[in-house]
Amino acid sequence: MKIETVDFYYLAMPTITTEGDGSQDALLVRVEAGGLVGWGECEASPLTSIAAYVAPMSHGACRPVRASVEGQELSAPADIARIARVIEWDSMDLLQAPHTWSGIEMALWDILGKAVGEPVWRLLGYKSAARKLPYASVLFGDTPQQTLDKAKAIRADKFRAAKFGWGPIGRGTASDDADQFVAAREGLGPDGVLLIDAGQIWGEDVDAAAARLPALRHVKAHWLEEPFHGSAYEAYAALAATSGAVKLAGGEAAHNVYMARHTIDYGKVGFIQIDCGRIGGIGPAKTIADYAAQRGVTYVNHTFTSHLALSASLQPYAGLRDHVICEYPAAPKKLAQDIAANPILRDADGEISLPDRPGLGIEIDTRAITKYLVDVNISVNGSTLFASKRFIST
Amino acid sequence: MKIETVDFYYLAMPTITTEGDGSQDALLVRVEAGGLVGWGECEASPLTSIAAYVAPMSHGACRPVRASVEGQELSAPADIARIARVIEWDSMDLLQAPHTWSGIEMALWDILGKAVGEPVWRLLGYKSAARKLPYASVLFGDTPQQTLDKAKAIRADKFRAAKFGWGPIGRGTASDDADQFVAAREGLGPDGVLLIDAGQIWGEDVDAAAARLPALRHVKAHWLEEPFHGSAYEAYAALAATSGAVKLAGGEAAHNVYMARHTIDYGKVGFIQIDCGRIGGIGPAKTIADYAAQRGVTYVNHTFTSHLALSASLQPYAGLRDHVICEYPAAPKKLAQDIAANPILRDADGEISLPDRPGLGIEIDTRAITKYLVDVNISVNGSTLFASKRFIST
Repeated sequence: MKIETVDFYYLAMPTITTEGDGSQDALLVRVEAGGLVGWGECEASPLTSIAAYVAPMSHGACRPVRASVEGQELSAPADIARIARVIEWDSMDLLQAPHTWSGIEMALWDILGKAVGEPVWRLLGYKSAARKLPYASVLFGDTPQQTLDKAKAIRADKFRAAKFGWGPIGRGTASDDADQFVAAREGLGPDGVLLIDAGQIWGEDVDAAAARLPALRHVKAHWLEEPFHGSAYEAYAALAATSGAVKLAGGEAAHNVYMARHTIDYGKVGFIQIDCGRIGGIGPAKTIADYAAQRGVTYVNHTFTSHLALSASLQPYAGLRDHVICEYPAAPKKLAQDIAANPILRDADGEISLPDRPGLGIEIDTRAITKYLVDVNISVNGSTLFASKRFIST
Repeated sequence: MKIETVDFYYLAMPTITTEGDGSQDALLVRVEAGGLVGWGECEASPLTSIAAYVAPMSHGACRPVRASVEGQELSAPADIARIARVIEWDSMDLLQAPHTWSGIEMALWDILGKAVGEPVWRLLGYKSAARKLPYASVLFGDTPQQTLDKAKAIRADKFRAAKFGWGPIGRGTASDDADQFVAAREGLGPDGVLLIDAGQIWGEDVDAAAARLPALRHVKAHWLEEPFHGSAYEAYAALAATSGAVKLAGGEAAHNVYMARHTIDYGKVGFIQIDCGRIGGIGPAKTIADYAAQRGVTYVNHTFTSHLALSASLQPYAGLRDHVICEYPAAPKKLAQDIAANPILRDADGEISLPDRPGLGIEIDTRAITKYLVDVNISVNGSTLFASKRFIST
C-alpha cells in the first residue's frame, strides 16, 4: 500500500498556562494508506511541527518532512525504517523534523498493525506484552504541605509509584528541597516507589545536585531525573559516580538514537527515558530499548500527554519483563483524557497492560475532541501550504 | 535600551533545487532597540524558524522564542547571555528554537556594537582581528573532470584553499572517490590547502570512511569533514584514531555548546566547525572557540550563505591567530551575494579581514533584495501570528 494522506490536528485547551504540564495541547497525526487509518502524536509546539512538514525546501538537505512521506510504499516495518533514513538525510538541516516525523511514524506502525491484525509490540518481535507498573506523574506542590496532599491523593488513588517534578525544586536551598522530598515520601507511604524529577534545574552544576543526594537517599528515591541539561553528559557521569542507590534518569530530549545512546554511555544513567514523540517514533525507541537491555540500563517511557502517546511509548519495551516502571499521566488536562475513547486503565493491582488490539489499539474519539481543534492557516506567496481540516467522520 | 521590534525577512531564489547549496534562501532578522537597528541571519528552513518565533505556548517549558525576547533589556553582552539562558529554559521542548534564536542573537550583538561604536569582536574581548585564509567552499562535480575544472577555476580565482564536498562522494567505490580527490588536488595545485567534506555520507560506518584514508593522505587532504552523522561521536573517535595527518572536522549541526564540546571531547576532531546560525549565535560560538583553543583543536566557521552570516561567524574566533582557515562561500547564489552592500573581499594575498566598523559591520542592501522577499502569513484561530513586512526604508 501507499501513504495516501497525512493530516495534522492541532488541539488545545482554551487556556494554556506556564505550568510544566505537557497535556495542555496536542498534535495528532492521521495517516491513511491502503484504506486503513493510523494515528500518532507529536510532542510539543504543534504549529512549529506543522511548519516543518510543509515548509518550502531550502536545499537538498533541508527538505520538508512531507517530501519524504507522501506517496511512499508502506508494506512492512522496513518501509518505516527506510523513510526514516530518507528524512534523516533529506531533512538533515531542519532541526524540528524529528518531532514532526515522530507522530507520523507512530501512525505508520498503527496502520501496519491494523493491516495484519496484530498489535505493534508483536510487529516489534515481542511474544507478549508484560504488565507495567505505572507511576503517577505530577508536579511538586508550591509548598511541602501541597506536595504531601498530592502524594496522599496519589496513594488513595491506588498508585504504587509516583514521580514528583519541577515546581520549587532547585530554586531554594537543599534543605527546602529535602522538606519537599520528605513530604512526598510521607504522603506516598513507606512502600511506594518514589521518583524525583529535577527538570534540568541545575544546568551542569554537579555540586548543587550532589547537595540533594543525602535527602534523596533518606527518602529512598528510586531515581533522580534530569538534574542537568539533557546534553550535559559530563555532569550526569560525575553525579552518577557518587549517587549510590539513587540512580540517575534522563534522555527525554533525545531527538535521535545517538543522543539516547550517549545518555547511557557517557551520562551513565541507570534509567533511559525515551519520548516516542521526539526521538523519531517507535522504531528508534525500540533500538534504544534493546541497547539499554544489553547494558543493564532500565528503559522507561516518557509520556505526559494522551493515551495514544502512552500506547505508542509503551510498545518499544512492551516485552522487556525486567523493565517494569512506566510513566502514566495521572492528572492530564481534559483534552488529553478525551483523545482516547478506550484509555489504558489500571487493573486491581494498579498495573497496566498494553491492548492486544491491532496497531496501537487506541480509538480516537474525534467527536469528543472536535471542540479543542485549533484552526491553523499557513500561506507562502499566496499559496496555502496548510489549512486545518475538520475530523473526517469514520 | 529595550528590544522594541524583531522582524523576520524570508528571502528565496525563484527556483530552489535539491543541490546541497545553502545559499538558495535566507532568513534575515532585523531587530530594533534604542533607535538602533541590528541584523542577523538564521540557518535553513525559514518558515519553520518563523513558526518557532510565533507559535502559541504549549506549556511553561515550550514557549515561543518571542516570549523571551521582545521588551527585554539590552545594554551589555550579559543581557544577551541572560536572554539565551531564559530561552534555553522556557523553550526547552521547542526543538527549532536554537535556530530561530541564533539570528536574533547576532542582531543583538550588532546593536550593542553600534551602540558603543565598536566591532563585535572587540566586545568579545579581542584586541584585534587576525586575517583569515578563506577557502572556497564548493560541491564536487559529478565527474572527476568537472571537479578538476572547478578546482582549476578556484586556483585561477587566487584562492589558496578549497573545500570540495558532497556530490558523488561515498556513493560509489573508494576508487571512484580517489579519482575525485586526485582531480581536486590536481586542479588546485600542489600548494593549495585541500579540504574534503563527506556530508555525513557514511552514517556511522567507520570501515567505509577508513577505506578513503589512503587516497586522502595521498592528496594531502588537510581535513576530512563530516564522514558521519553529526552525533556519531564513537565513529568519529574510531576514525580519528587511525586517520593520521588527515584530521577530522565536524560540529556544524551543534545546536548548543554541549554538542560542540562533545564533538571535540568524544569525537576527537581536529577542527571544530561552528555554525553561528544554529548554535545559538555568537556568544556560544565564542565559548566553543575558547574551549577549542584550550584543547589544541582548531576552530573554523561554518558558513554557506551571505556575508552577514560570514561576518557573524568570524567574530567568535577573530582574535585567535593560530586558527587561520575560514569558510568562505565562493559561489553563492545571487540572493546571498545581494544581501551585503559591503561584502568581505579578499585582499591581494587572498586573505580576508573582518570589518573594523561597529557591530557586524555589514550594511544590508534592502533595495537589492526586496525582489527575493517571500510573503508568509501564519494565522491561528483567525488571528494573524505572522505576516511578512516590506523592508523598512532607513
